[in-house]
Amino acid sequence: MKAEILSIGTELLLGDIVNTNARFLASQLAAAGVEVYHQSVVGDNAIRLAEQLKESFSRSQLVITTGGLGPTYDDLTKEVAADFFGRKLVENAEILRWLEQRFQNLGCPMTPNNRKQAMIPQGAQILENPNGTAPGIWLEDGEKILVLLPGPPREMEPMFLNQVMPRLQKATGKVICSSTVHLFGIGESAVEDRLRQMMVESQNPTVAPYAKQGEVQLRITAMSDSLDGAQALIAPVRDKICQDFGPLVYGVDVGSLQNALVQALTANHRKVAVAESCTGGMISQRITQIPGSSAVFDCGVCTYANHIKSQLVGVSPEDLEQYGAVSQQVALQMARGVRQLAGADIGISTTGIAGPGGGTPQKPVGLVYVGVSCEGFEQVIKLNLQSQATDAREDIRYKASSHGLYLALEAARRLGAK
Amino acid sequence: MKAEILSIGTELLLGDIVNTNARFLASQLAAAGVEVYHQSVVGDNAIRLAEQLKESFSRSQLVITTGGLGPTYDDLTKEVAADFFGRKLVENAEILRWLEQRFQNLGCPMTPNNRKQAMIPQGAQILENPNGTAPGIWLEDGEKILVLLPGPPREMEPMFLNQVMPRLQKATGKVICSSTVHLFGIGESAVEDRLRQMMVESQNPTVAPYAKQGEVQLRITAMSDSLDGAQALIAPVRDKICQDFGPLVYGVDVGSLQNALVQALTANHRKVAVAESCTGGMISQRITQIPGSSAVFDCGVCTYANHIKSQLVGVSPEDLEQYGAVSQQVALQMARGVRQLAGADIGISTTGIAGPGGGTPQKPVGLVYVGVSCEGFEQVIKLNLQSQATDAREDIRYKASSHGLYLALEAARRLGAK
Repeated sequence: MKAEILSIGTELLLGDIVNTNARFLASQLAAAGVEVYHQSVVGDNAIRLAEQLKESFSRSQLVITTGGLGPTYDDLTKEVAADFFGRKLVENAEILRWLEQRFQNLGCPMTPNNRKQAMIPQGAQILENPNGTAPGIWLEDGEKILVLLPGPPREMEPMFLNQVMPRLQKATGKVICSSTVHLFGIGESAVEDRLRQMMVESQNPTVAPYAKQGEVQLRITAMSDSLDGAQALIAPVRDKICQDFGPLVYGVDVGSLQNALVQALTANHRKVAVAESCTGGMISQRITQIPGSSAVFDCGVCTYANHIKSQLVGVSPEDLEQYGAVSQQVALQMARGVRQLAGADIGISTTGIAGPGGGTPQKPVGLVYVGVSCEGFEQVIKLNLQSQATDAREDIRYKASSHGLYLALEAARRLGAK
Repeated sequence: MKAEILSIGTELLLGDIVNTNARFLASQLAAAGVEVYHQSVVGDNAIRLAEQLKESFSRSQLVITTGGLGPTYDDLTKEVAADFFGRKLVENAEILRWLEQRFQNLGCPMTPNNRKQAMIPQGAQILENPNGTAPGIWLEDGEKILVLLPGPPREMEPMFLNQVMPRLQKATGKVICSSTVHLFGIGESAVEDRLRQMMVESQNPTVAPYAKQGEVQLRITAMSDSLDGAQALIAPVRDKICQDFGPLVYGVDVGSLQNALVQALTANHRKVAVAESCTGGMISQRITQIPGSSAVFDCGVCTYANHIKSQLVGVSPEDLEQYGAVSQQVALQMARGVRQLAGADIGISTTGIAGPGGGTPQKPVGLVYVGVSCEGFEQVIKLNLQSQATDAREDIRYKASSHGLYLALEAARRLGAK
């Protein structure tokens, strides 16, 4: 099946936001064996949108759009789509009830323009939106399939995975299933180097690396006519990868470093505490993202100022004076101190220079010390996280927080069960 | 002038990388007063690339491509472009010398396929590439202008800014300029309801709402032949919006709540401290996202467990017992306590039920108390942040953290300068 991705939104044409939706859909469709030869972006403009639909359907059977489904006057994707296929827009009682209920739950009145979101093209299937107010649309017209998805990724992505993908699989008669191996401490190109042979040769399952801010995920995707069949294709490849990369693998289908950490701590009945300087609370925030983290995390401190480092986690003022806040000594005392403060099994710390200012030749922007302290083991690692990213400060902070989570995970596994 | 952005690369169609080049070029072209109504992506395929060039030039005078200029066999942008305008590719001695010099400097031999990069369409202007080996191309054919840029952002962006932009501004006399009004405490459709008339009628400047997790941004965009002219068009509209929405406006062109807060604190020489429970460090993390926040933020604590709430910020164990951790009393004591602990002017606190578990009929998931304490003023607000989002937990936490930042901003403005 040939498909096109059509992103709709003036904010894309003006460059206000980057088009992550097209990337998400492209990778999902590729994994599903759907061929995509064109991506397009048009603004919230009825004429150009209609022209683009014409152009796209002249080349492809399936067109997936994102954006322009909201309640405001410039959201006109449904209107143009209905018109394109000569359908009327009709008010859907079910959606209207659902919308009214939703606004009632939110305790705010439903403004009249929200009724617009209950209008759908005649004969269309509704794609429910549990994450927003704009439902998606699945519209078939002969051979042609038009899928309208909302613009916000947190609404669009689950809608695609849970409601569009199954329909596509029915249309293509195939089941696609994938498994992700999570690596930390190795770069994407190094991973590719070691796996090139496998990546080139392996067609089903396919093996694709995805770099994610200091992490690499290897997604193994198999296509078969049954779920069991697909999983049977995946298993041996996944096992070989885990064997080859050994300790660099921090989990399989585990979601994230913080999730792997909370799982390991929970399993071992251990607790972690965090003292953060340059990461500014990001490690605590990532740990507490995970439901149930309260069982393994009691306390985090963001000791941003030097006197707070001494006051809260007992860093020696002399060492702060002598070595500076960004030093191996201070990182170690912070990890020790917060572990003691919280009565935790593991203490984690970060201190560094996130920039853009504050760097010196001796201590450049990107220099970060990450410390860990647990019974019988203490360690401080020195990182150089210089970043070319547009938001280098946030990139450095995020990667430093990932190293902290990884050290905590290693410690949790080293300590074992209580 | 009408322009299109044409991104070339199979890795974009497969979703291996996100198209940041299109976003960069779009925002730069908008700022230069060049109208962009279409963006397209095609793979490294001669036929589809030629078709897309035909399509694009049928709509636009200027087409800017990225990608496909490298030395490998699948880099064919120059070949297709030359063919499209009926030009020959000729070897450029100057580029060849430069390439040979460059490889000599790099101390590695120049492989034969690199000679390919010295081939340019007859009559084309060369755009030098100090950051890579593939030069860019500026090719005029009657009214049509075709600009070929390399794919890697670190090569493409400086080439565009330093060599393409000056040529473009000569070609167009127009400037586009935007201003953004930031609102907190009102939904997108409610904003649009109040502004519908203005949004429909106002053509220059245009007014567009943009929803962002619990916030609404109103972007006012004007086009004129000078920056002053554009700003003069924007000013009255912006003033009227600020007047109409009054206290719901937390800033103009201020970027984010945390940025507005750090600016206000810096201007008033005030400091904030944060005690977080359900937000788990997110408020500290958002404040410290802002460069220079260390001047206004010394300390944040994530008091996740009850005994830590008592130990660190002096919450009364009796009140914890009597009212529970998620209560107005505890929120107030946390805000007071952390303000005292850090010796800050303002203390902020959050305590709530982020879910998915832990809710009761009396205290459902989404119930959050946010507290603020400063000299002469204390307040606790009770929020019901029930969320339908896939990641409801994160949604609740983010919105709670935004309310905390907003209360801190109000306090900073109330306190005034020290």
